[in-house]
Amino acid sequence: MHNDTRIPPEDSSAKPSKEGFYPALDRFSAFSDGVFAIAITLLVLELPVPPADESLVPALLEAWPDFLGYIMSFAFIGGIWLTHSGLTRLMKRGDTVANGINLLLLLFVAILPFSTSVMVTHLPTAEVGVAVLLYGINVLLASLTLSLLIRYIAHEPSLVADDIADENLRRIFKQRWISIGVNSIAVVLALIAPFIAVALYLIQTVLLLLFPLVGMRWRPARQR
Amino acid sequence: MHNDTRIPPEDSSAKPSKEGFYPALDRFSAFSDGVFAIAITLLVLELPVPPADESLVPALLEAWPDFLGYIMSFAFIGGIWLTHSGLTRLMKRGDTVANGINLLLLLFVAILPFSTSVMVTHLPTAEVGVAVLLYGINVLLASLTLSLLIRYIAHEPSLVADDIADENLRRIFKQRWISIGVNSIAVVLALIAPFIAVALYLIQTVLLLLFPLVGMRWRPARQR
Amino acid sequence: MHNDTRIPPEDSSAKPSKEGFYPALDRFSAFSDGVFAIAITLLVLELPVPPADESLVPALLEAWPDFLGYIMSFAFIGGIWLTHSGLTRLMKRGDTVANGINLLLLLFVAILPFSTSVMVTHLPTAEVGVAVLLYGINVLLASLTLSLLIRYIAHEPSLVADDIADENLRRIFKQRWISIGVNSIAVVLALIAPFIAVALYLIQTVLLLLFPLVGMRWRPARQR
Amino acid sequence: MHNDTRIPPEDSSAKPSKEGFYPALDRFSAFSDGVFAIAITLLVLELPVPPADESLVPALLEAWPDFLGYIMSFAFIGGIWLTHSGLTRLMKRGDTVANGINLLLLLFVAILPFSTSVMVTHLPTAEVGVAVLLYGINVLLASLTLSLLIRYIAHEPSLVADDIADENLRRIFKQRWISIGVNSIAVVLALIAPFIAVALYLIQTVLLLLFPLVGMRWRPARQR
Repeated sequence: MHNDTRIPPEDSSAKPSKEGFYPALDRFSAFSDGVFAIAITLLVLELPVPPADESLVPALLEAWPDFLGYIMSFAFIGGIWLTHSGLTRLMKRGDTVANGINLLLLLFVAILPFSTSVMVTHLPTAEVGVAVLLYGINVLLASLTLSLLIRYIAHEPSLVADDIADENLRRIFKQRWISIGVNSIAVVLALIAPFIAVALYLIQTVLLLLFPLVGMRWRPARQR
Repeated sequence: MHNDTRIPPEDSSAKPSKEGFYPALDRFSAFSDGVFAIAITLLVLELPVPPADESLVPALLEAWPDFLGYIMSFAFIGGIWLTHSGLTRLMKRGDTVANGINLLLLLFVAILPFSTSVMVTHLPTAEVGVAVLLYGINVLLASLTLSLLIRYIAHEPSLVADDIADENLRRIFKQRWISIGVNSIAVVLALIAPFIAVALYLIQTVLLLLFPLVGMRWRPARQR
Repeated sequence: MHNDTRIPPEDSSAKPSKEGFYPALDRFSAFSDGVFAIAITLLVLELPVPPADESLVPALLEAWPDFLGYIMSFAFIGGIWLTHSGLTRLMKRGDTVANGINLLLLLFVAILPFSTSVMVTHLPTAEVGVAVLLYGINVLLASLTLSLLIRYIAHEPSLVADDIADENLRRIFKQRWISIGVNSIAVVLALIAPFIAVALYLIQTVLLLLFPLVGMRWRPARQR
Repeated sequence: MHNDTRIPPEDSSAKPSKEGFYPALDRFSAFSDGVFAIAITLLVLELPVPPADESLVPALLEAWPDFLGYIMSFAFIGGIWLTHSGLTRLMKRGDTVANGINLLLLLFVAILPFSTSVMVTHLPTAEVGVAVLLYGINVLLASLTLSLLIRYIAHEPSLVADDIADENLRRIFKQRWISIGVNSIAVVLALIAPFIAVALYLIQTVLLLLFPLVGMRWRPARQR
């Protein structure tokens, strides 16, 4: 449908206005930020508001899977965003392939509110294994696509800001294998021990959301 | 209601501050990015979460039209965004007419989650033809409006960044006839062979989402 | 709660870093663009998808008030955005008062999907008058707040880009009385002749969405 | 999951491209603006549209808690945004800790539409105290996290634009204790006198939304 907008990638020495119909980096960032921000905020729509005739605290306690899912997916999308925005800071521009991979990444991020809802709805049922598996596959696909995007950009000199940025990208790409490894283990564990898989996601969530606060205290007092 | 904000287009030699009440290009982009990002992310709200007492996998398999619609419309809006963001990179500024056409384009994009939902709800019914026809008209109108926007800007020297940008715009405008042709055929086929029309949309989707990945392998290894 | 962030406006000769805790103009624009884009896109959630066992075309035809409301409110928010983005192009920066007025404007814009839904739900009932009145008050309040914002900025030399921008702002402010006049008449007519009020909104909608296209044909062919 | 993207904060004298994988300030702002704008606009989805067969005015009057909650939370998020956007104007860049605190802040902001809905649903019931308490805790946590973010940035010379910005940040941080004090009192009052707590929120709302308009009149006429 719009595949006509893709033209073969050119030499980085080409003039900007001849590079064809690639989006500018600021729109690449703005559109991605939009999808990340909306997906992360839409998660709240899945939280069930107890009706007026229901006792509030027991109803909220019973909805613990919903709150668990909310925080887990919020942290996951937040982490993806953090890496993605670090990535664009090291980029000079995008190209058609980078945009295609990015669109795939956004697809897996945008569908996460759905996967989260599926998982938390079936967490207290006999089908918890399948539910966690589907959630885990979604998380893993998003994680893999992000790594693919970093790897692609790190291998395209015309897209990277400078050589130091390039080194940073390659280092980050390698570090991401840890995250992909943990998420792969969670997928494998989903069917046989779903709550251990959920625990793995929870550990990552806590690390992502609370580690920076710990970092605050390690910091020496500022001299003025 | 706000038609008072439109004043006749002026000579491109006029000073920026005399050009009247046109939005700056960055807000033209930011607002469009916002609508694209929200429309593409709202698609997820149409996906049905199977209730806790329903068997998960059969329920998800039965909802195949919803997932088909999600991916098709995600790819279509992603493609429109790709072309639109490439367009603004070649633009110097917008004007009242460009904003009007852009608003029409956004209207057709913003209503696509509704058309998608109508189509997928009626895909397994006897009215599949009408449902695909309505979806096809929406897609075609968005596609035509985008081409109109490109054509208008390509014909306004005061809006285009430079002559090379202008040539790019005219080339892209011509290439877009392929996409419009395919989408027109899909509309014609909707009533007589709706599933062939859906197949046409699906082919475009796959091309748009997976073609960039194929492109990766064709690329020679990077020399450093 | 955050009123502590407001400090008295200062002389425009003050150094930027002493101007206190005002947001930069780009975030003033970005946040407003976000609210405009989301409000305009949330309108689609009000459109009713006919269920699979209902005949599609009659169901959609019966939902004509929903489509009418969608297009009317889409055009209205689009028009407000057009004026608002033209306004920020003439601004140098915002201040606390401008932000306060802007927040009020966004409140009236963000609630418009609700007012639209109320109006279209009650358009085919005996209470059409009250429904159109409530919609009209919302539209008028948004329109008045926008004018107030323009007037405030036009009277603050420290906020306006330059003298020509200032003249533009004052001219636009005067022209907006036409729009406010029409919207006031619609409010007065709502209770006594609600469908004439709706017709007034519809005329404004058509003018806003289709006038730019008419403008295209009036334009002489481009010489190269 | 993405904790691998966090590397220890470095000396401010390091070159930008060696600072690691931190997002640029513009994406820090854009993502936050997105979440603020979406959360503030999603509030409208909680407003109940009276069905066609219900008398409109009585139904809307009965829904007064929903409108109260809408305006209160709209003003609160608007106030948080105002302070947050003032903060980024005084910043040079973010770092991992700032991003972590910011993500926590956004989590409390994004969940506010849910807390608002819980509160207004249970405002006319015997459980009004618990409902207001939960809302109050959410508001207080968001407020405290914002203060924490300001304090952290004020203590990191490498993140602040300049010395005057630094002084501003420290002054604002101190002023915020008033807001935190009022919100703490509201939390304490929630269980024993919930409607006085609501009144406190309402006073803050009115101050935030209408104080700027009062400020307009205090301003001397502009000399030209």
